[in-house]
Amino acid sequence: MAEGRFLSLFDYKTEKYIVAKNKRVGLLYRLIQLSILGYIIGWVFIRKKGYQETDEAIQSSIITKLKGVSVTNTSESGLLVWGPEDYVIPPQGEAVLFIVTNFLETPHQRLGHCAESIKVLDGHCRDEEDCEEGKMVVAGHGEMSGRCLRQDVNSTGTCEIFGWCPIERKFKPEGPLLKNAENFTIYIKNFIHFPKFSFSKSNVLETTNDSYLKKCRYDKEVSPYCPIFRLGDITQQAGYKFQDMATFGGSIGIMIRWDCDLDKGYDNCNPQYSFTRLDISHSNKTITTGFNFRHTRYFKNAAGESFRSLFKVYGVQFNIMVHGKAGKFSIIPTAINVGSGLALMGAGAFLCDMVLLYLMKKGDSYRERKFEVSGGQKTTPETNGVEDRSASAEQEKLTT
Amino acid sequence: MAEGRFLSLFDYKTEKYIVAKNKRVGLLYRLIQLSILGYIIGWVFIRKKGYQETDEAIQSSIITKLKGVSVTNTSESGLLVWGPEDYVIPPQGEAVLFIVTNFLETPHQRLGHCAESIKVLDGHCRDEEDCEEGKMVVAGHGEMSGRCLRQDVNSTGTCEIFGWCPIERKFKPEGPLLKNAENFTIYIKNFIHFPKFSFSKSNVLETTNDSYLKKCRYDKEVSPYCPIFRLGDITQQAGYKFQDMATFGGSIGIMIRWDCDLDKGYDNCNPQYSFTRLDISHSNKTITTGFNFRHTRYFKNAAGESFRSLFKVYGVQFNIMVHGKAGKFSIIPTAINVGSGLALMGAGAFLCDMVLLYLMKKGDSYRERKFEVSGGQKTTPETNGVEDRSASAEQEKLTT
Amino acid sequence: MAEGRFLSLFDYKTEKYIVAKNKRVGLLYRLIQLSILGYIIGWVFIRKKGYQETDEAIQSSIITKLKGVSVTNTSESGLLVWGPEDYVIPPQGEAVLFIVTNFLETPHQRLGHCAESIKVLDGHCRDEEDCEEGKMVVAGHGEMSGRCLRQDVNSTGTCEIFGWCPIERKFKPEGPLLKNAENFTIYIKNFIHFPKFSFSKSNVLETTNDSYLKKCRYDKEVSPYCPIFRLGDITQQAGYKFQDMATFGGSIGIMIRWDCDLDKGYDNCNPQYSFTRLDISHSNKTITTGFNFRHTRYFKNAAGESFRSLFKVYGVQFNIMVHGKAGKFSIIPTAINVGSGLALMGAGAFLCDMVLLYLMKKGDSYRERKFEVSGGQKTTPETNGVEDRSASAEQEKLTT
Repeated sequence: MAEGRFLSLFDYKTEKYIVAKNKRVGLLYRLIQLSILGYIIGWVFIRKKGYQETDEAIQSSIITKLKGVSVTNTSESGLLVWGPEDYVIPPQGEAVLFIVTNFLETPHQRLGHCAESIKVLDGHCRDEEDCEEGKMVVAGHGEMSGRCLRQDVNSTGTCEIFGWCPIERKFKPEGPLLKNAENFTIYIKNFIHFPKFSFSKSNVLETTNDSYLKKCRYDKEVSPYCPIFRLGDITQQAGYKFQDMATFGGSIGIMIRWDCDLDKGYDNCNPQYSFTRLDISHSNKTITTGFNFRHTRYFKNAAGESFRSLFKVYGVQFNIMVHGKAGKFSIIPTAINVGSGLALMGAGAFLCDMVLLYLMKKGDSYRERKFEVSGGQKTTPETNGVEDRSASAEQEKLTT
Repeated sequence: MAEGRFLSLFDYKTEKYIVAKNKRVGLLYRLIQLSILGYIIGWVFIRKKGYQETDEAIQSSIITKLKGVSVTNTSESGLLVWGPEDYVIPPQGEAVLFIVTNFLETPHQRLGHCAESIKVLDGHCRDEEDCEEGKMVVAGHGEMSGRCLRQDVNSTGTCEIFGWCPIERKFKPEGPLLKNAENFTIYIKNFIHFPKFSFSKSNVLETTNDSYLKKCRYDKEVSPYCPIFRLGDITQQAGYKFQDMATFGGSIGIMIRWDCDLDKGYDNCNPQYSFTRLDISHSNKTITTGFNFRHTRYFKNAAGESFRSLFKVYGVQFNIMVHGKAGKFSIIPTAINVGSGLALMGAGAFLCDMVLLYLMKKGDSYRERKFEVSGGQKTTPETNGVEDRSASAEQEKLTT
Repeated sequence: MAEGRFLSLFDYKTEKYIVAKNKRVGLLYRLIQLSILGYIIGWVFIRKKGYQETDEAIQSSIITKLKGVSVTNTSESGLLVWGPEDYVIPPQGEAVLFIVTNFLETPHQRLGHCAESIKVLDGHCRDEEDCEEGKMVVAGHGEMSGRCLRQDVNSTGTCEIFGWCPIERKFKPEGPLLKNAENFTIYIKNFIHFPKFSFSKSNVLETTNDSYLKKCRYDKEVSPYCPIFRLGDITQQAGYKFQDMATFGGSIGIMIRWDCDLDKGYDNCNPQYSFTRLDISHSNKTITTGFNFRHTRYFKNAAGESFRSLFKVYGVQFNIMVHGKAGKFSIIPTAINVGSGLALMGAGAFLCDMVLLYLMKKGDSYRERKFEVSGGQKTTPETNGVEDRSASAEQEKLTT
């Protein structure tokens, strides 16, 4: 008997099927099978490359470099020449960088006493009592000294503060001062690495020709491996005019997408660039566009006293984001996708069963054939695997 | 015959089932079915929104702006007024920013010879031989000149070095110097974009009222679209006192979570803020809390000689991280989830089979019915557990 | 009859199987079952820990600190001592940081007129007409004044520009000036947090011994919780010599991987460090290696006139990336993995059916048994497209 057991282990058991010669359900089932097959082959395998193992943990290194100069002439700052070392903040060529396009310098600020800016609402005063000594207003520029500076007794003035004087003047930009910024070029060097497949690539042409990068300009068709872009072209592709953005500033996202099918080889893994404006929302009724901040340069005079230049700079922030995924054939995801597709076919069969048994006219007769109740020992229901009334009930049903 | 073949293509084949009138297994199977159904409907579809296609590749742009001033008075630096242009490092309003709350200035450092700091263990000396000329100690401040500077012949001294002199003095902060920093406010402008669904939103109220942002303060209920926070409130919500963090510094994570159900429309996609301290570990027995670094300001005197101010600054680093996902109904994930749920039901049926066949008393009789060996030769059960007679059995059946 | 219905709800229905006594297919099926079982248990559960719920949204905070000094002596800058406050850019200890290893200072630049650099191709001129007044060349250093500066009438010269003069001289680095940079140490403080499991950890030993971090150095075996690395060791582990990288600069990725099995407890969650060079591509024929940028320091003389020092710095960019995932037992992924495994077994059964029915010699006879058409009335196939004769067919079969 042990032998029998052992042998039966290698007997192949296959489900028994009832053939229902019902063409409508048959057709329905074939349609479901076909559409699932089409979905698996067409969508999962061909479109989504479900036979591939993917690596989305892309490692990326970005180095940026700007080129271009601009000359400005303002009453506060005089003639100034702006090079990349000045207008790129921070200068070290990171993936998030800010390009100054407009600015207001407040030169020669010293620590001392002067009137608070009238833009600071809590700094307005009618008499000395409005200016509590030692008080600091959150949006203010210094510590109140307790005096109220007014033209005459009846007018509204502003509190005197101790701070960096003179206070920055009001400034409504009327256009970018670095008019030339549109023509600056940005060189975006991007190295990527997919650790799972040990695959590395750069977005710069592999050439030994030193002058290649001095003359080329990015073009999707002609020079996809020359990642040098004109700022004006970037904003244009994002859908905005550079001169509009340059006045009050803004934020542009530069997306680099690496979609690599490593089954097709090294040359089929190419970067794709896209540009979007990041600081404009759904509706345009917003007070939040623009980008500016202040920075300072500190100096000391011969006596060792500090003074500083305060710069309020407006400009465009570029935010370079690298996404990517690489795929390579692997047996495991293939198996999983085939398996889940077949499971879906099971769902289709279940649906067809429901239709056959409950919606078709002759559903009852199919049900009887599909569900075998008592195996056949109708005469001795008590003895068989099954109990109670089921067997006789069956008989009743059968004899009807 | 070809016609027969063709017809049979549209015959629907459905599995034949044995009905086992065993209420216990039946109940078990229904329970399993119910719980899988409950799991699919309740968890997968209602909780996890399994019918939605999701986009987790959120694109985000952060701009930050601080407001507030503080006055400090120290023996080294004298009276100083700190505005955002000074205490925010870097000043350009990035997503990772550092707020100075405490500092030590070492003004007027010049290149020259002076004694190494006694904090540098490798700089201690008993005689000239301990100070090798030209040697550079890793944690030191300059190049050893070869001399050992001691009070008298018997004491321990430190080596003379060539470096920026005087060396920074020892400094044990006793409290934050920028006492006011708690009341500074941070304005966090965040624009997000879900590329898959072309959906953009900002965390700032869409209004044309210019003064809205001048007066409002974030409140979850009243003004969820006014992203202006008091620094003291942020640390408090993270579970720490600002004054404690301000003395030695620390690191705070500001998480902005966008969990958007785009089936429900634009207004149901709202930012949620949460705050955690990032530099405190599981246990508190650690030497690693705090955050400080040094930076310099360089000057030149009338003779063109360089000197500098060295600032050791302590403060709070804010790390703004944006997470998010958007979901929208799609047929594909729905099909996958239904399919895998049905596959789980198959697993349930398999489990019930095992129970029925191997754990139930009458399992053997079920087994006989379930596994039809040779089409009905019930009279010879002993022979049919086995093998190659199947072919003849087959024949018999066919001849009936 | 309602009772009968109700009862049948708890009748367990199990598929009827045909036992095919074909050892080859049986063996094939067992092999498939075994390999799927092995795959599920071995790969999915043991290797991939498929019974765990995972959290990959690691929150991480990085603080870096450099130690080390170097002395340089150049004709332009004279003797200089470089400390971390000078050679780390930006100085605030971020996760992306740049270490200066080589530099060229152009001191005392003033705004004025001088000859354009001969490296700027568009600045070459043969006569005044080549130098259009007011023109700005993209890669140039200022605005053309309209004059062409030549040695003599026949030679090629460069246009005169208005810009920061003198222009930076040509510089071919012959070796790093900060020779000592190899011995600098970097301390990488990393705090992580898995929000789903409320789990936090740091990569620094939890000790109250203040001097631990002053003396230790990272070692995988001895001191895995002392994250202090020598720069030379990092580049060596990435496969490059520090001195080679230091001359022209480069980019190194420091990956910290936290692979935490939280079922095994706090002590089994350890950081793993790996180092790769990020700016070297697949092939080495590239013009793109190296990393340099320019930054400035502004000064004012007693008369209030600005002058500046321009630094072109070469160095190594370190890019610290934290990846990680934590897993903990959960019932849901377990159920999903078991379910999909069983679905794969269904696929195996389908395959064996195909083999049995279409490749085996006796396939036809199996097919007849597997697909019960009308229960045995082989004599009247035309009538059996349908139905209810099945009951009598059943009877016939039973009576054989």
